[in-house]
Amino acid sequence: MLKSLIRRHADPGTAPGTLRAPVERKVDEVRMRLLRYGAWGCEERELTTVAEVEEARRVAAGGEPGVFWLDVVGLHDVDVLAALGRVFSLHALALEDVVNVGQRPKVEEYDDHLFVIVRGFHEDGDELEPEQLALFLLPGVVLSFQERPGDVFEPVRERVRRGKGRARGMGADYLLYALVDAVIDGFFPLLEAFGERIEDLEEELIEDPSPATLERIYQIRRELLHLRRAAWPEREVVNSLHREETPHVSRETKVFLRDCYDHAVEVLEILETYRELAGSMLDVYLSSLSHRMNEVMKVLTIIATIFIPLTFVAGIYGMNFDVMPELHWAWGYPAALALMAAIGIVLVVFFKRRGWF
Amino acid sequence: MLKSLIRRHADPGTAPGTLRAPVERKVDEVRMRLLRYGAWGCEERELTTVAEVEEARRVAAGGEPGVFWLDVVGLHDVDVLAALGRVFSLHALALEDVVNVGQRPKVEEYDDHLFVIVRGFHEDGDELEPEQLALFLLPGVVLSFQERPGDVFEPVRERVRRGKGRARGMGADYLLYALVDAVIDGFFPLLEAFGERIEDLEEELIEDPSPATLERIYQIRRELLHLRRAAWPEREVVNSLHREETPHVSRETKVFLRDCYDHAVEVLEILETYRELAGSMLDVYLSSLSHRMNEVMKVLTIIATIFIPLTFVAGIYGMNFDVMPELHWAWGYPAALALMAAIGIVLVVFFKRRGWF
Amino acid sequence: MLKSLIRRHADPGTAPGTLRAPVERKVDEVRMRLLRYGAWGCEERELTTVAEVEEARRVAAGGEPGVFWLDVVGLHDVDVLAALGRVFSLHALALEDVVNVGQRPKVEEYDDHLFVIVRGFHEDGDELEPEQLALFLLPGVVLSFQERPGDVFEPVRERVRRGKGRARGMGADYLLYALVDAVIDGFFPLLEAFGERIEDLEEELIEDPSPATLERIYQIRRELLHLRRAAWPEREVVNSLHREETPHVSRETKVFLRDCYDHAVEVLEILETYRELAGSMLDVYLSSLSHRMNEVMKVLTIIATIFIPLTFVAGIYGMNFDVMPELHWAWGYPAALALMAAIGIVLVVFFKRRGWF
Amino acid sequence: MLKSLIRRHADPGTAPGTLRAPVERKVDEVRMRLLRYGAWGCEERELTTVAEVEEARRVAAGGEPGVFWLDVVGLHDVDVLAALGRVFSLHALALEDVVNVGQRPKVEEYDDHLFVIVRGFHEDGDELEPEQLALFLLPGVVLSFQERPGDVFEPVRERVRRGKGRARGMGADYLLYALVDAVIDGFFPLLEAFGERIEDLEEELIEDPSPATLERIYQIRRELLHLRRAAWPEREVVNSLHREETPHVSRETKVFLRDCYDHAVEVLEILETYRELAGSMLDVYLSSLSHRMNEVMKVLTIIATIFIPLTFVAGIYGMNFDVMPELHWAWGYPAALALMAAIGIVLVVFFKRRGWF
Amino acid sequence: MLKSLIRRHADPGTAPGTLRAPVERKVDEVRMRLLRYGAWGCEERELTTVAEVEEARRVAAGGEPGVFWLDVVGLHDVDVLAALGRVFSLHALALEDVVNVGQRPKVEEYDDHLFVIVRGFHEDGDELEPEQLALFLLPGVVLSFQERPGDVFEPVRERVRRGKGRARGMGADYLLYALVDAVIDGFFPLLEAFGERIEDLEEELIEDPSPATLERIYQIRRELLHLRRAAWPEREVVNSLHREETPHVSRETKVFLRDCYDHAVEVLEILETYRELAGSMLDVYLSSLSHRMNEVMKVLTIIATIFIPLTFVAGIYGMNFDVMPELHWAWGYPAALALMAAIGIVLVVFFKRRGWF
Repeated sequence: MLKSLIRRHADPGTAPGTLRAPVERKVDEVRMRLLRYGAWGCEERELTTVAEVEEARRVAAGGEPGVFWLDVVGLHDVDVLAALGRVFSLHALALEDVVNVGQRPKVEEYDDHLFVIVRGFHEDGDELEPEQLALFLLPGVVLSFQERPGDVFEPVRERVRRGKGRARGMGADYLLYALVDAVIDGFFPLLEAFGERIEDLEEELIEDPSPATLERIYQIRRELLHLRRAAWPEREVVNSLHREETPHVSRETKVFLRDCYDHAVEVLEILETYRELAGSMLDVYLSSLSHRMNEVMKVLTIIATIFIPLTFVAGIYGMNFDVMPELHWAWGYPAALALMAAIGIVLVVFFKRRGWF
Repeated sequence: MLKSLIRRHADPGTAPGTLRAPVERKVDEVRMRLLRYGAWGCEERELTTVAEVEEARRVAAGGEPGVFWLDVVGLHDVDVLAALGRVFSLHALALEDVVNVGQRPKVEEYDDHLFVIVRGFHEDGDELEPEQLALFLLPGVVLSFQERPGDVFEPVRERVRRGKGRARGMGADYLLYALVDAVIDGFFPLLEAFGERIEDLEEELIEDPSPATLERIYQIRRELLHLRRAAWPEREVVNSLHREETPHVSRETKVFLRDCYDHAVEVLEILETYRELAGSMLDVYLSSLSHRMNEVMKVLTIIATIFIPLTFVAGIYGMNFDVMPELHWAWGYPAALALMAAIGIVLVVFFKRRGWF
Repeated sequence: MLKSLIRRHADPGTAPGTLRAPVERKVDEVRMRLLRYGAWGCEERELTTVAEVEEARRVAAGGEPGVFWLDVVGLHDVDVLAALGRVFSLHALALEDVVNVGQRPKVEEYDDHLFVIVRGFHEDGDELEPEQLALFLLPGVVLSFQERPGDVFEPVRERVRRGKGRARGMGADYLLYALVDAVIDGFFPLLEAFGERIEDLEEELIEDPSPATLERIYQIRRELLHLRRAAWPEREVVNSLHREETPHVSRETKVFLRDCYDHAVEVLEILETYRELAGSMLDVYLSSLSHRMNEVMKVLTIIATIFIPLTFVAGIYGMNFDVMPELHWAWGYPAALALMAAIGIVLVVFFKRRGWF
Repeated sequence: MLKSLIRRHADPGTAPGTLRAPVERKVDEVRMRLLRYGAWGCEERELTTVAEVEEARRVAAGGEPGVFWLDVVGLHDVDVLAALGRVFSLHALALEDVVNVGQRPKVEEYDDHLFVIVRGFHEDGDELEPEQLALFLLPGVVLSFQERPGDVFEPVRERVRRGKGRARGMGADYLLYALVDAVIDGFFPLLEAFGERIEDLEEELIEDPSPATLERIYQIRRELLHLRRAAWPEREVVNSLHREETPHVSRETKVFLRDCYDHAVEVLEILETYRELAGSMLDVYLSSLSHRMNEVMKVLTIIATIFIPLTFVAGIYGMNFDVMPELHWAWGYPAALALMAAIGIVLVVFFKRRGWF
Repeated sequence: MLKSLIRRHADPGTAPGTLRAPVERKVDEVRMRLLRYGAWGCEERELTTVAEVEEARRVAAGGEPGVFWLDVVGLHDVDVLAALGRVFSLHALALEDVVNVGQRPKVEEYDDHLFVIVRGFHEDGDELEPEQLALFLLPGVVLSFQERPGDVFEPVRERVRRGKGRARGMGADYLLYALVDAVIDGFFPLLEAFGERIEDLEEELIEDPSPATLERIYQIRRELLHLRRAAWPEREVVNSLHREETPHVSRETKVFLRDCYDHAVEVLEILETYRELAGSMLDVYLSSLSHRMNEVMKVLTIIATIFIPLTFVAGIYGMNFDVMPELHWAWGYPAALALMAAIGIVLVVFFKRRGWF
């Protein structure tokens, strides 16, 4: 994951505004799906060429008022993107950021459109895979760009289709909010999964710490760093949409953005809480290892300390001196055994006193 | 507790303003208790339907001026809440937050009402259980929503009943302050309990550190993190009630809010102090383990180091060589014993010098 | 100390403005001492009832202009305090804070008076005992409330008596400054004592670290946390007295408050420096323990590693096989001894090479 | 590297504005390369004397409008620099900063020119070598000063030559942006290399930690500190170029600077992420060592604890007492062996139970 | 050093503005050296009484315009200082700060003069000795107070004498800048020395860590804390001289102060970098100790684990049972040796596999 976040950068010195397809091609073909809706209803269809898009837009502009949402999946065909840029008069720098996947989430206001980048995540096997989502807000129009098909926007589309809630009655800025909100809400299931992993680790830490536990703690810290790197600027994105005076976002939608902002803050707070817990776990792990070492050492010390003197006594009476009177006593052997037993008992008592048993 | 804080989130992409009952149902039935008071006295009664509420409000509006406080316990019946929302014209987003228990504490100002969420805690066995309290302030009206019956608001109700202090003479904004203040004051007994746990741990750390101590330290750190996550935004809540220009809160009440703000800051400062102490305790625990290991090692080293050479000497005279003149000396055995004693004494002196006894 | 800082809180839900005497009663009777001074001289006397205070004030108001300083020692008699509150028209919330010892230092501006709380410390045996000092500034009047007699204000009183410096020529706001300044200057001797304790600990750490050292480091960190909890808001107190536009403090006095602010900042900086040193000391302690363990292990390893092989050789020639030709060689015994010596020497050289001696 | 960052400072008390050549001379001769371009095309040539520069500038001023970029390589010839300073009326303090390599990146606005210092890095063997780049922006003119020839500006020059993108159509402020941008983009390959080193270290940590790993972690932390020390002020540089009202930078160029600012922020965020990872790695390393020690200790403990009692039993029957009945039993020897085997098995089972195998 | 920074404080409650000589007297007599210069040249002389100073000032006021710099060395004669205070109308609080050595660096603006305190350091044997320098800026006049003769201002005096650079052409505010700049530049040689000590420590850490290394790391951290405590407020001093609107400092001089500010920031950044390095070094030291312990343990474990079983075998055949058939085999002895060799080889192979050699 580390590499995937960095490897995308253009060579230093490349001219700004140059469109270069992402290294990895994640879908076969660019797919464009149009969703038009308004008080009058809702219409959905797949478009295949930029010419069709242009045509659809012209029709829409002449028809009843409503929202025109074009969702583009696949960023590898630079010509298509450049053509769309011309159709909707998108700024070259913004368009460059669309294809430079791995951008920092941000809002940029251009004269006639608002450009928003957010980053979502989806689990790809064990790894969290980041995904860049680029959104343009023009009057009555929202353009969304994804690298590959994902279901992050599907619930919003579904709400529009069913005409539930405010979905159809409000403008394009509300759609922008709904898309950003969907991305931020997408953090919660991930956080839940993290919460469970942390709780499992906590049990493991107490019951059976192993180097694998350590690796898992390190892994969690690392992933939390990545989530945080996405979540911080995302909070700023929502905040600036909500606070700044911009003609693109209506006052009515801002109430919803305030709510969305609360969620973003909450994501960050949970992340920070997890980070602190993960930090504590490392300390606990180390303490736990130290404690185990103590236990091992105690066993060694008790056994060695008891038997070493005993063996020494046995050694003495194993010596071959001609003159060793004890050896010839009738009770010499039992006396020696008794001596050993006495030494052993004294040592055991000594250790008991120290609380080592 | 970790899970309970996160598991409540709506599925990503749910339409904003959708009312969904909390997962856990904590009371059997929604209970609504009305308390009306003013300079003229105080009246209290249980209401069972929203129609009754509507009726009561109409009566109140026509009667003498005073404060209308409706306390709703139980959030699982979405229809009742939606009906209340219509009666009092509450904003859909605010109402959604009422049922989404686990919200971040916050103040939100709508055109005609103020919405406040605070989080209290009550001890449930060994665990701290968070509880969300939602408050609406309308002109002359306060609505409070709790998930289950609790005694956090009881002292305020009691003060109103007895007509003590300013309770009855001031407006609905003062009631709002009193409720928020009760929640924040509720932190102090918890902090006291923490203080005692920390002091017990400090003694345990010095006298008899064990892995259970470690677990307890970790547990405390974790709970402090949760308390802090509630206390920080609560401080902001009180601060914004106190600082911001809002028509809902009178200047007179703001003096009290300033006092309440001081309490919130104090809660945070105590929490931070505890956190630092808990952090230090982990270090002390680790040092303490290291010290114990040193003690164990010293015993082993002293015993082993003294007896190993002695055993070696015994081993030499246990060899069976034909020609070993010492074995045939008359004083060979006592001489060997003396040699061993000498070696032992030298080593004991050596260790004394090193300060190992 | 931990407990004494928290245990004072009113029960959650108590009405604001309720006067409740502190749990601990530190003096037998409330003592009130009046000091009046001005360009015309200085007059000092003990008052016993609030009526006398009222009378004295009336006289003062009619007499020559000057400063009226009433110093009240003992907070357990709530009736006296309430009566004083009425005489000087003090705000109920401020008065409540006077008796709730353990308040956070703060400045509060009311319409006709300024209310300041600061926290001093005095050493009570080994423990630092916090002490709350409450000050009211009214036009021409300063009221000071202490829990028990202390000498913190004595030097100021002395200066007034002797008429040294600016003491008598300036107004009540200057007296307020002088009292706050005395409290802040009171930190320096404590810091000096800490400095000495830290230097002693540093020596102890290097020369003879023991668990008692650890306990002392922990103790210092804990006390520094408490001092810091008092010093931070005290800095804010002085800062807001100095910066804010308030009619209660004259421009001339603000120059002195700026000086006082510098002292408060210095206190904090020294506290932070000490905290960092105390933090480093824990690390040094742990490293020091590890080093000691290494030394112990080395001794064990050297002795054991040298003698274990030697004992093995002796063991071989202690075996009772019928056919062991070496046993019958004339030089067998000296040869065995020589072998052992050789092994011993090789091992000693090996350890020397490793730098273990 | 540590030294190279500090050793360049003038002796304390040197008069400001004094030009002193850097200690190390990195090129043989000062080289000046002129690149003039505009809508009309592009012209490039090497100049050898300041007189030629002056002449070229006069010609340029009289010719078609365009950008005049003079790139100076080599800072050891103070006379040349002083002469250039006179030709372009550069401020003495700015000129001093040009030769004082190792300056903190900064922007300084003088009345008639803007002065920018940025710091790039190039890998010199294993070490990161910092390189100071000084830029002056005058109307229509950009002066760049490097200590030695490097390729950091080459891609920009190439873009101008080929006339690609906006390169030729925009003013001198755009060139300034392009040069700064090239430096900041130059961080990304370094960060990539760091990312790879960190990933290699992570594997090494888990599989085979050694003191060399520790040294590498320390080395990475140290280099990250140096990069961060350059990147923080560089972010500020771009930020102040982008935010501040300055007549030197056009509104059009500021859009590009905003983009450049995003990159600078990203560099910093990646650096912080790496720092946290490197910090965690140290903890993991220490835990890993502790775990290894545990493993070593376990082996020792198991072997020693099993054989010490067995050897003791053998020692007993090696004693030479006259009366030891067991020695004369027919089954004495097998019984002793059986006893030993039994002891051994009991201990093995004991250790299995403890989970030590 | 810890003590020297704190022990200077006046007794709590001392009247502000009281002049008390520093505890330590560092020169025999107060020396006053006058340097007058202007476009017309430069004149230098020693003055011995305040009357002479007054006279010189009167002469200067009547003569050609220029700068009047009086450098006072020695602070123990309070009468001289008080007299100077009267001659130049210095504020009592400022004068008090002059003698209270160990003040926090600060700028204070009084109606008719600017008062600056900075702190320099000079190495006194192994210790860094702080030195307080107080500066007053009046129209055309600079007063500087030092506790003892030092060479920190000498380079500035030299520049004035030689008339190099801007030295003589600019006003008293430029002289103030030059003096402050000299103090800040004085940090760089100290930092260089620190850099070298850190690099030496880094080598020592890797090659031969010992408790002395630990002590040195701790020592460096401690000294860095002290330097930082001086450098932070010094940065603020320069910043406020540079930013704030004050009639005492001309716009021309502010350009130089901006440069000086950059240096102060750089000092702080280097200090922070060093602190982080010193922090890392402690971790590396601890890891390094752990690694060494592992090495020691491995040697012990290998030797003990190999020989303990061998000795046990020897012990078996040293037993004296009547019936031990092996003892009577012809190949018994070689077989036993072979068995031992086999055991030894198996264990060696086992350890090799574990990578312990």
